[in-house]
Amino acid sequence: MTENQALERPLPLMPAAGHLTLSTGDTPVTAGPGCIDELKQIVGEAHVVDAPADVERRARVTIPRRKMPRAFVYPGSTAEVQQIVALANRHQILLWPCSTGRNWGYGAATPQVEGSLVVVLERIDRVLEVNEELAYAVIEPGVTYEQFNAYLKQHHPRLWIDCTDGPPNGSVLGNALERGIGETPNGDHFGCICGMEVVLPTGERIQTGGGAIDGLRTWNTHKWGTGPYLEGIFTQSNLGIVTKAGIWLMPEPEAYCSYIFEVYDAGRFPELVDTFRRLALQGVLQTKLHLINDVVLFTVLTQLKNENLGGQSFLTQTDIARLRDKYQVAPWAGGSGIYGTKDQVRYQKKVLRQELARFGRIEFMDRRKYHLVTALLPIVKRLRNNPTAKKLIDKTLRLTLKASVEMLEAAPRTYDILQGIPTEYFVSHAYFRSKMDKPFSKIDPAVDGCGLTWFAPILPLTVGDLVPFLDHCRQRFEAFGFNFYVAMLMMNARSIIALQAILFDRDKPDELERAEALYADLVSYLQGHGLQQYRTGVQCWDMLFDEAPEFLALNNKLKAALDPNNILSPGKCRIGAPQ
Amino acid sequence: MTENQALERPLPLMPAAGHLTLSTGDTPVTAGPGCIDELKQIVGEAHVVDAPADVERRARVTIPRRKMPRAFVYPGSTAEVQQIVALANRHQILLWPCSTGRNWGYGAATPQVEGSLVVVLERIDRVLEVNEELAYAVIEPGVTYEQFNAYLKQHHPRLWIDCTDGPPNGSVLGNALERGIGETPNGDHFGCICGMEVVLPTGERIQTGGGAIDGLRTWNTHKWGTGPYLEGIFTQSNLGIVTKAGIWLMPEPEAYCSYIFEVYDAGRFPELVDTFRRLALQGVLQTKLHLINDVVLFTVLTQLKNENLGGQSFLTQTDIARLRDKYQVAPWAGGSGIYGTKDQVRYQKKVLRQELARFGRIEFMDRRKYHLVTALLPIVKRLRNNPTAKKLIDKTLRLTLKASVEMLEAAPRTYDILQGIPTEYFVSHAYFRSKMDKPFSKIDPAVDGCGLTWFAPILPLTVGDLVPFLDHCRQRFEAFGFNFYVAMLMMNARSIIALQAILFDRDKPDELERAEALYADLVSYLQGHGLQQYRTGVQCWDMLFDEAPEFLALNNKLKAALDPNNILSPGKCRIGAPQ
Repeated sequence: MTENQALERPLPLMPAAGHLTLSTGDTPVTAGPGCIDELKQIVGEAHVVDAPADVERRARVTIPRRKMPRAFVYPGSTAEVQQIVALANRHQILLWPCSTGRNWGYGAATPQVEGSLVVVLERIDRVLEVNEELAYAVIEPGVTYEQFNAYLKQHHPRLWIDCTDGPPNGSVLGNALERGIGETPNGDHFGCICGMEVVLPTGERIQTGGGAIDGLRTWNTHKWGTGPYLEGIFTQSNLGIVTKAGIWLMPEPEAYCSYIFEVYDAGRFPELVDTFRRLALQGVLQTKLHLINDVVLFTVLTQLKNENLGGQSFLTQTDIARLRDKYQVAPWAGGSGIYGTKDQVRYQKKVLRQELARFGRIEFMDRRKYHLVTALLPIVKRLRNNPTAKKLIDKTLRLTLKASVEMLEAAPRTYDILQGIPTEYFVSHAYFRSKMDKPFSKIDPAVDGCGLTWFAPILPLTVGDLVPFLDHCRQRFEAFGFNFYVAMLMMNARSIIALQAILFDRDKPDELERAEALYADLVSYLQGHGLQQYRTGVQCWDMLFDEAPEFLALNNKLKAALDPNNILSPGKCRIGAPQ
Repeated sequence: MTENQALERPLPLMPAAGHLTLSTGDTPVTAGPGCIDELKQIVGEAHVVDAPADVERRARVTIPRRKMPRAFVYPGSTAEVQQIVALANRHQILLWPCSTGRNWGYGAATPQVEGSLVVVLERIDRVLEVNEELAYAVIEPGVTYEQFNAYLKQHHPRLWIDCTDGPPNGSVLGNALERGIGETPNGDHFGCICGMEVVLPTGERIQTGGGAIDGLRTWNTHKWGTGPYLEGIFTQSNLGIVTKAGIWLMPEPEAYCSYIFEVYDAGRFPELVDTFRRLALQGVLQTKLHLINDVVLFTVLTQLKNENLGGQSFLTQTDIARLRDKYQVAPWAGGSGIYGTKDQVRYQKKVLRQELARFGRIEFMDRRKYHLVTALLPIVKRLRNNPTAKKLIDKTLRLTLKASVEMLEAAPRTYDILQGIPTEYFVSHAYFRSKMDKPFSKIDPAVDGCGLTWFAPILPLTVGDLVPFLDHCRQRFEAFGFNFYVAMLMMNARSIIALQAILFDRDKPDELERAEALYADLVSYLQGHGLQQYRTGVQCWDMLFDEAPEFLALNNKLKAALDPNNILSPGKCRIGAPQ
């Protein structure tokens, strides 16, 4: 099954009535054939995709609904982006720029307004500069994690990137502009952006920082520049198209190891939260530590269709207990990396062992162990083809390591990611409910019709905030017939993201509806409780800022000033949407 | 001499012709008597100062020139600020808000446009909230370092602020909004701001972060909020009046010590720069380490008038050698703090001793040594009143500690500042050229007529960037007849500030002119060499962004959108100044 059957039926559209039409008229403006010809003249015929079937395929999403774009255009340079923006202003066409459009679970490349022209920046993909002495690079929006890591490994192996456990072919800048989070001490991706080049909605090219374009020596070393600090307004927004930016990198540390820990008793979660906060405020923990529940691990390690559950789509407590045992999964598991001089790493290991082992266990992985595991795993897997050997191996692993082969496989992937080497391994979780087998490479859950919506609330890092909230979410997930999937990502010493995936089978209309209803239910709870998502997707922009009308009004004022024709992603984060 | 004689003569005004008049007309608009009455109704008669002599005194600056305001007004609440903004819009009066106006060397409370109404926020000075668990506070703009530290010491001794070595009665938020730099790992003051309340130039009160006003639980824990990150546009700008903000604090560490190091051979400066960058990129050095040259120390330890130099205002190489010997000052000296668990502090001491002692020496100060030195110093100083004892003591100190009494006095002040306890001790450097004795407390170099202009360039932290630049600046200082004063402040692992003070005697017209000419000379060098100041004062806004017209145009667009009547600090950072 290479094509997704569900998606051969058109997806339902978002209700457009009244809500997201343009202020310039009641019907959304779309590009006529003349415009498409002009576009082809700008970027070349090969770089405009307007055949409906192709457009449909490229516009696929993992979230329940989408809007169909008019066409996809792939400019090859900043100058071409400027020409496209000029064209859009001339003809009042709506543009929907995205870097690579692999923002699965938040909307991928789907625009907020039907008929928009999606401007994909993936061809603008050069690593323009690497400064080893000062550990930064200047890159274009089409640069992917995979490409960036490979480029550095080849030319500047002493510099490491920070990647996510998401798609390796996702855009580094795209993620940073959505203020995504990674893994290492450089995991606040927007926090590590320093210096942007932006094409404004009126077509001018500007550079942040307050210095001469292409001539400011601190452009990529001093984040705030001189004068107002403007970079923030180009994140989670629609005020410009970032065509270049500086990004801080990690110099290869003298020593590095990753670690995984397990929490055997879910009841000790509050104690764990207090430990995290204390260690982070002390500066011991500076990475974006991840803590995931059992359901997250199941989605990575297996697929529902392989677990003999009949048609059942919900794991009961009994099922969960069985899967925990089968894969040797704890109620909570976490992990991160340690970077520094040999002494620093030794000291941190000592502290983390003291602090985390008491919840269950902690295992460190260094280069030696990594090579051992990756060398042994293929052998073990081959031996396991024999059913008797399989039983014996699994039993041995369980007794000696308290682990499953599947869990052993995950550890080296974690070791890789924590040093900036991206992998598709964890992205495969999106196929947990899929009827197709998890693909081995070139994963595209949107094209493959997986159902996935991210709900990404952020909370103060306290027991008082987290415990009742997670209880509530778990209860809502279960009330809507979904298993509770939560990955806690430490944003900083004071805040943590409780990232939740709603995984659904989009072939089942009732499930698709329940997924949507659960999402709406969770979002409305946030608004009633003084909470917010650290990052949002197209699925919730109609509801955004209901509680912050002054904030929305201010953003709309900025939008009107910078984008008088409202051609750039109107409605993104609700900004520029008709009131 | 309690009053400054130089300032009894009116200071020369900045040339206003054509350059900084308002776009609304050719003559600056100023508040008529009716407006002043209205103002008095808003804030109470006692809180409006419009008598010319009082206004003159409050408007004093340490920089060469100033503009005279029409009056000073001291609102007592955010609601009053909003009423003042409304009044300004009604009557087209220019407002010049400042927190406490102790921004000496950058312009203090002097407005950019003659006749503006200076709105001082010092009465809005509550600590609104302190969260010990999450280590943050919410404060108003009138809160000073002194007051903030005292408040925490009394109510929440387990939280430390980050202060500067500038005025203790300076505003914590004022400094952060100008993106000032402190000392500890929380020394990027704007970087530690999280959540702002802002009165817009049209009078609305907004809150950043994208949540409900006064109801967003992550407002002070998650810096970026949801939707566009807007806080940056309210720094070094004139787009709003910040009336409240969250600020991250340091939980009292398990262990703390400060250190001072000396570099005996100025020729090893390049090696030192490489060491700093390496240690910072490794994450060993996370504070805003300071490195100062001998001239800085002289201005702190003594005054020119006490050094028997006759009328001479410039220290020759011979004078410098003599003073270095007298006060036991090295060509370069530096210092910072270490914070963490006992193990962390022990490890860092070891690393820093290894890395820095080889340049000369490094001395650590912990609580025990601090108490010892502060207990002994008064005794030693008393004994030194006897000339014979003085000689003996000085010789002993020199032989045993390679130190002077004056240098010993500086060490505990450094220890204090590095744990957030502000002191006026270092501010007294502004009196180096003054004919009055350094005051012991309530220092106000502006009122006292000291001459001081800050020049605050920021550079990439590399030898290639720093060495030729410092050589150039030293040469220019000396060409204009000033001793080269430079304090290097580590902004981050990739950038360093080369903060330079032009200290001049404002009673001497030629010196005042030379001070101005030197400043202009230095600024124009920056623009020709792709450099910038991390922070600027009123003395250079007419020249700002000469090389970045697109950046200025964008800021002016934002300004016009948010402040249609251009009433809020027009011309600040050149934004909203007539083109």
